[in-house]
Amino acid sequence: MIANTPKPPYYAVIFSNYRTEVDEGYGDMADEMVRLAALQEGFLGHESVRDGLGITISYWENLDAIKKWKANTDHLIAQKYGREKWYSAYKTRIALVERDYGFEV
Amino acid sequence: MIANTPKPPYYAVIFSNYRTEVDEGYGDMADEMVRLAALQEGFLGHESVRDGLGITISYWENLDAIKKWKANTDHLIAQKYGREKWYSAYKTRIALVERDYGFEV
Repeated sequence: MIANTPKPPYYAVIFSNYRTEVDEGYGDMADEMVRLAALQEGFLGHESVRDGLGITISYWENLDAIKKWKANTDHLIAQKYGREKWYSAYKTRIALVERDYGFEV
Repeated sequence: MIANTPKPPYYAVIFSNYRTEVDEGYGDMADEMVRLAALQEGFLGHESVRDGLGITISYWENLDAIKKWKANTDHLIAQKYGREKWYSAYKTRIALVERDYGFEV
């Protein structure tokens, strides 16, 4: 689903990544991170897709909300496992959405 | 591929979309748009993935480069066909990347 975000400005965290071949709880942890992120104050929505390259974008009200989510204890554990076994490469970009537009049929 | 972008700040154009079932030249036009975008001054790279939801992100040096690409004649035609037949929904977000980090094994 395309995230139903409010009028800008708001923030996007763009997480571009490649997986290793290691599963070991990846699917469950990914689902749990989506569930927990959605409970955070300032969370606005997310979009996620993978076909080899994976792109997950979460949207946030402000930098403070992103900082708090990054420091969430369960999320810290997921980040550690991510670096150690689940991802072969990733890049995270923190970006201020200044403008948006679109359409739906 | 994860785009090999320079040190921030730079801009991201996040294009989240769903396709219709209409092909009619979509693949060729999409390839041609990537080729043309890469020739534009200020283009820094792009990432694209689809699995139902499609997310294409292009990275740019500044807003002026984005504005020029948006007004490119061939790109205007592609945008028109996109609204008329290829996409059932899309959202475009223009975002200033303030910070990035990552790793590669």
